[in-house]
Amino acid sequence: MPSELEIISNIRRRARKGSGIIVGIGDDAAVLNVSPECELLACCDLSVEDVHFKTDWSPPHLIGHKAIAVNISDIAAMGGIPKYAMISIAVKGRTDEYIDALFEGLNALADRFGVSIVGGDTSASPGPLFIDVSLLGEVAKGRAVLRSGAKPGDLIFVTGSLGSSALGLNLLQLGHRLSGSTVDQPSSSSDNSAQFDPIQSARERAILRHLAPEPRAEFGRLLGQSGLATSMIDISDGLTTDLSHILEESRCGAVLQAESIPVSDSLLILASEMQIDDPLNVALNSGEEYELLFTAREACTAGIQEIAARANLRISKIGRILNEPEMLLDLSGALSILTPCGYQHDLS
Amino acid sequence: MPSELEIISNIRRRARKGSGIIVGIGDDAAVLNVSPECELLACCDLSVEDVHFKTDWSPPHLIGHKAIAVNISDIAAMGGIPKYAMISIAVKGRTDEYIDALFEGLNALADRFGVSIVGGDTSASPGPLFIDVSLLGEVAKGRAVLRSGAKPGDLIFVTGSLGSSALGLNLLQLGHRLSGSTVDQPSSSSDNSAQFDPIQSARERAILRHLAPEPRAEFGRLLGQSGLATSMIDISDGLTTDLSHILEESRCGAVLQAESIPVSDSLLILASEMQIDDPLNVALNSGEEYELLFTAREACTAGIQEIAARANLRISKIGRILNEPEMLLDLSGALSILTPCGYQHDLS
Repeated sequence: MPSELEIISNIRRRARKGSGIIVGIGDDAAVLNVSPECELLACCDLSVEDVHFKTDWSPPHLIGHKAIAVNISDIAAMGGIPKYAMISIAVKGRTDEYIDALFEGLNALADRFGVSIVGGDTSASPGPLFIDVSLLGEVAKGRAVLRSGAKPGDLIFVTGSLGSSALGLNLLQLGHRLSGSTVDQPSSSSDNSAQFDPIQSARERAILRHLAPEPRAEFGRLLGQSGLATSMIDISDGLTTDLSHILEESRCGAVLQAESIPVSDSLLILASEMQIDDPLNVALNSGEEYELLFTAREACTAGIQEIAARANLRISKIGRILNEPEMLLDLSGALSILTPCGYQHDLS
Repeated sequence: MPSELEIISNIRRRARKGSGIIVGIGDDAAVLNVSPECELLACCDLSVEDVHFKTDWSPPHLIGHKAIAVNISDIAAMGGIPKYAMISIAVKGRTDEYIDALFEGLNALADRFGVSIVGGDTSASPGPLFIDVSLLGEVAKGRAVLRSGAKPGDLIFVTGSLGSSALGLNLLQLGHRLSGSTVDQPSSSSDNSAQFDPIQSARERAILRHLAPEPRAEFGRLLGQSGLATSMIDISDGLTTDLSHILEESRCGAVLQAESIPVSDSLLILASEMQIDDPLNVALNSGEEYELLFTAREACTAGIQEIAARANLRISKIGRILNEPEMLLDLSGALSILTPCGYQHDLS
């Protein structure tokens, strides 16, 4: 186990020197330059052992990856650019290699999205590993995309596909784990096998989606810059719950088209052997997907598709904002009421 | 125990609406306006149960108080103004009253120093209570007071007095606790007793200093605005250790005058019955004091004393910066080498 000073020294040596950092790690606080044309975005997300992750489910570099990915996703959901992170970690009884790998995963994602680590805190823990990442971002003045801007008649869009994060969690609970090759090279997991096994590949992709989500940072930033979205949120609690947050803040309702919901391939492939009767229902409620859910005027559709093409990201038009405060599902013309089934931590 | 949504809703309802907050709690990230004349300060500090605090030593409102006080102290040590906080908390199995009291203590200090709570995260905990406070502040461009600016010949100053935080910790370890009246009204603890007991009063003050430190926010801000300090740090690890941080970053040494170190009254009163032979040594190494340690050119002494008078705060001139990279103590003309004895968390 490295000492507290060794951990801090390693983080400091490894820290990316981004523009705008006047003082990074090593003083009482970081000193940062915020552009006068920008507003500051600030968010934080906790990752707690045995609540958000299990160390026998996830290698340390993916625990680090996910701890910062969920924050980058929050900044993307505001249409902003992630810039500066602070990492607080409470830990006890781990090897040097474990801590190094955790920060390597965290740093790799930070580097990829231009995020500089500018501070943090380190502490012993009475037991569980505890990581809190605070992330600061920038957005052009007045261009932050809030949850509150959806208007009746707006179309509802979602990036990527949905359902595999819940599926991955289910597979982990059933005892499935990432294979060694996926742990080492997550990006090539699905197609580098000499004997390609579509079932095993779908399992790997689902588990990886749950353990190492990919924040839609570029798309979020481009959409924010374009000014085309009227509201946006990232899907952390599930499509129905996160849409209900938009509807509540925007004081309106929505109808979703069942056949337009992008159910993930891995869920469709594995539904039968996992005895999942209703993959659509899984896709509607799967949390920790970190896709972006947003609304826009119908006239902006072409512009939004152009942005999706630039970010090399699939988007789906899944429904429409209504005036009435209800959330409906249209299944081949039959309307039913959608109930948010989002996750709440049990604190009792 | 309140639910996660209830905690967030309580925090949101209670949150102070400060200027510069475009969007506070309730979206993916807060949206903040930073003045174009300012630089942003960012810091965070963890408070972990059984590492930083014990629930049978401290009532919940003082746990909340201290969790944010240590961050406000960091911003003060940069010469800045604290502005926006994010609170991450992992908790399990506490009553509604306990959580309310914790946030009440935190909010009370935030209000007193003009800090607005703009975000955070809430999670279950597998056991211990974790609180991570991220604090953002502002400082005029180029006016942040760093650890690295001390120059040979500069005088060394410290606010307030030193030693009672270590003493308070020692008293808690020996089984002493705050009396009920102090818990309810900390500010009037030392002089509202019908039968004044100087020993009991000194104990209360020492324990209170440890559990509810008072950040020197106004003095730090005024000193930062004045531009008179060449370096500054807050005393969290102990005078010797925190001075060594200044010396390391400024690449110089220092000599401290033993007779000028402001040993706290409660330490002097209790030294005999606590069998403390060398109160000076306790004052030199007592951590979690949250006084400000700073350096300035000798010619600035009068200006600094004027700022101390405005902030109604005692300051002491305790030594001088040297060219040679050593840290010395001058005890009536006899020089000895001072070794930093700061606290490091045991992570093994």
